[in-house]
Amino acid sequence: MKSSTQTITPRSEDYAKWYQDIVASAGLAEHSAVRGLMVIKPYGYAIWENIQKVLDAKFKETGTANAYFPLLMPESYLKKEAKHVEGFAPEVAMVTHAGGKKLDEPLAIRPTSEVIVNESFAKWIQSYRDLPLNINQWANVIRWELRPRLFLRSSEFLWQEGHTAHATRDEAEAKAREMLELYTKFTRDYLAMAVVTGEKSESEKFAGAETTLTVEAFMQDGKALQAGTSHFLGQNFAKAFDVKYLDTQGKEQYVWQTSWGMSTRLIGALVMAHSDDKGLVLPPKIAPLQVMIIPVNNDKKILDLAEKIDGELEEMGISHEIDAREGRPGPKYFDWEKKGVPLRIDIGPKEVHDGELTLARRDTEQKETIKISGMASRVQDTLNDIQAALLAKNEKLMAEGTMNAEDWEQLKSSIGKGFARGGWCGSRDCEDKVKTDLKGTIRCITSDGNTFNKCAVCGAPAKHSVIYARAY
Amino acid sequence: MKSSTQTITPRSEDYAKWYQDIVASAGLAEHSAVRGLMVIKPYGYAIWENIQKVLDAKFKETGTANAYFPLLMPESYLKKEAKHVEGFAPEVAMVTHAGGKKLDEPLAIRPTSEVIVNESFAKWIQSYRDLPLNINQWANVIRWELRPRLFLRSSEFLWQEGHTAHATRDEAEAKAREMLELYTKFTRDYLAMAVVTGEKSESEKFAGAETTLTVEAFMQDGKALQAGTSHFLGQNFAKAFDVKYLDTQGKEQYVWQTSWGMSTRLIGALVMAHSDDKGLVLPPKIAPLQVMIIPVNNDKKILDLAEKIDGELEEMGISHEIDAREGRPGPKYFDWEKKGVPLRIDIGPKEVHDGELTLARRDTEQKETIKISGMASRVQDTLNDIQAALLAKNEKLMAEGTMNAEDWEQLKSSIGKGFARGGWCGSRDCEDKVKTDLKGTIRCITSDGNTFNKCAVCGAPAKHSVIYARAY
Repeated sequence: MKSSTQTITPRSEDYAKWYQDIVASAGLAEHSAVRGLMVIKPYGYAIWENIQKVLDAKFKETGTANAYFPLLMPESYLKKEAKHVEGFAPEVAMVTHAGGKKLDEPLAIRPTSEVIVNESFAKWIQSYRDLPLNINQWANVIRWELRPRLFLRSSEFLWQEGHTAHATRDEAEAKAREMLELYTKFTRDYLAMAVVTGEKSESEKFAGAETTLTVEAFMQDGKALQAGTSHFLGQNFAKAFDVKYLDTQGKEQYVWQTSWGMSTRLIGALVMAHSDDKGLVLPPKIAPLQVMIIPVNNDKKILDLAEKIDGELEEMGISHEIDAREGRPGPKYFDWEKKGVPLRIDIGPKEVHDGELTLARRDTEQKETIKISGMASRVQDTLNDIQAALLAKNEKLMAEGTMNAEDWEQLKSSIGKGFARGGWCGSRDCEDKVKTDLKGTIRCITSDGNTFNKCAVCGAPAKHSVIYARAY
Repeated sequence: MKSSTQTITPRSEDYAKWYQDIVASAGLAEHSAVRGLMVIKPYGYAIWENIQKVLDAKFKETGTANAYFPLLMPESYLKKEAKHVEGFAPEVAMVTHAGGKKLDEPLAIRPTSEVIVNESFAKWIQSYRDLPLNINQWANVIRWELRPRLFLRSSEFLWQEGHTAHATRDEAEAKAREMLELYTKFTRDYLAMAVVTGEKSESEKFAGAETTLTVEAFMQDGKALQAGTSHFLGQNFAKAFDVKYLDTQGKEQYVWQTSWGMSTRLIGALVMAHSDDKGLVLPPKIAPLQVMIIPVNNDKKILDLAEKIDGELEEMGISHEIDAREGRPGPKYFDWEKKGVPLRIDIGPKEVHDGELTLARRDTEQKETIKISGMASRVQDTLNDIQAALLAKNEKLMAEGTMNAEDWEQLKSSIGKGFARGGWCGSRDCEDKVKTDLKGTIRCITSDGNTFNKCAVCGAPAKHSVIYARAY
């Protein structure tokens, strides 16, 4: 690795540029030759591998099996569910030629796989004994973006998409809530991000769903980022693709369905939730490297101690490396700071002499001298502390950035700064006014009941309590 | 799961139909709405996940990091390496429309990623300190097939593609050999398949490579299946994409490269190497389920014993399930036989009474009664035996199916039955004659030196010893 010479624009100066600088200087991703498509670099991909590992195990605990469905589908399939095609058609990429010939029918690259999954479900499901059917796929999808941004809005992204089929409405609705809960816990416990959850409004829900549940995270500039969604699809796709089962009475019934997804956009969320003007900050539970050992020079005693610590961390199952490159430690500190390694262990002549180690936290920049003998538990405790501190910090940020908006003036003044919690009359007009005049959206209808009397937009009686915000 | 009612065509009657029947009745994959594209069903995908887990860990041991490169590349990029585009152009799928508009330049869906990887390598590599660079990607690719077959020849498949860059020719050639060796060991030790390895002829090598090394496996009908390839790319792509480094003397040099891949075609190879007329047969090291426990009825004592065995297998880390579906055991035996579960544990009243278990091997169909007390080691030993027995059986099959071909008559009579080992003068004419007249190809130039005096095709002095065979 070369020492990075890239400087990072401060957040206060240009937040968008700061984000780009963090992504570049940490080596997470870069633009490719095709506008809107990104290369996920090894360090960025290692974060995705950790996300995959945790989510995949959790999905399997809930009885989900992985499968793989094709990248391409006939254009006509996409059109079978009316709302679905309406929502996705503007973003679809079309294959018109293959094998040296023009195709009889253009093929759509999947923007999501509900239609192609349901073609298979119609074959796989015959009776109530085949239900529930819980399937997940790890895949790439294409949704053409006009204003692409690395991770946040890229024309290709990686994700998981879960697809389930159930015998009853209740069971499918419960599954959609179960996955929302799983996503919420994952986002909090692993990504250390505070979230608000709830239902999307009619205009914001997934094209083809009856209801969309969402996990909304809070970014440092006060904007929301949709971290994951879980859809209750009702029988919309079942009817479009004739997915039926014989119930216990031998009667044909359409299945009830859900779908749910999280994507590489979470890496962009991690950047914007935790990082600072010095570089990336990562929660230990998802960091590719939890600890970096820095020998301050190549003295044999120093390197021997570094090797000893290396062995102990290995046994503890803590991911780590020794940075034994030649040169002064300063540039090394700088590199790992930019890459967001949660904890550094510095080893120099003083440490060797005193039988001590210096721990340096990435999040607080605090240093601590510890005895080598108690290293194992102190390192593990510190990593746990960092994980908890990042969540607490992000929770505080969200709490302080969430304002009550009783009326239009309050909504107007708060929406640029953070989340505005307010009433909503339920009308599309008011929602559109927020979009047009304030560049904001209803992020979700909060699930803790309506606590507002009036719509923050029009002043009419409020039906729901919602979060208004600008969003990525 | 429903009991499968599908019957399997015997191999002797119709080998191609037998293959389809095994894939269908084991629930591995099915055709999708787009001809040539397949759906990999959960049981088939679980085999792929096991293959991924093992290979990924082995790659990482050799210092390889994963990354992700875009699905689409400008058509013009594909054309930068002349031989490469010549080889792949006929199979490429082209995106011409996206985001509701015709694109200025058509985009090719990757048939492989050398060109797009090298676009990044040119940015990532500056000096000798950046080398070697070892990158792998797990991805889907499209190569349009006119006569598609599930797993063996599908227009979309999943694979891994490794891409490396080195300072010297020697180092790159050594890497290509290292990966061939890794693939060879993996194919033998995990997939239990006998293989021949060697170099591809000029006409059979990867489009754009200097040399292609290959792992060729032996199928039950005597055909070869290319299980993995490792290419030494020389400086072909480095020159096309200007991938240079500054050497220790500060002089600009082109890098030397390799690429190497294995794909979901291995699942087709597993089917054709080991399975029989009753269904799939899987090596324990790669089987999604190693053991199936079958309680012959729902008597409480029987179920209790099944639970106890379940707990012990869990502790041992052996993947397993209890098939507690209602009904007679016969149809259950039949189901798991078709799915190739290596070992069955039957538990009935006799077993409960005698404190014993009945083990039934899938491969030999042998049954054995064992004491419950010694269960753990006996089950593990039996799984090891099955793994070894499958390899031994496949080795014997290959040995018996490999004939020496001293001349054209011998070549002609042996190539339909198995591998023909013979001399080759090195001419393209002889290679083409084997293709046209015998529907065979040179699978590889064997690495154990030339032991034949004459070319099996034309009788001229032999330059190489090769394997002639028909292939998937």
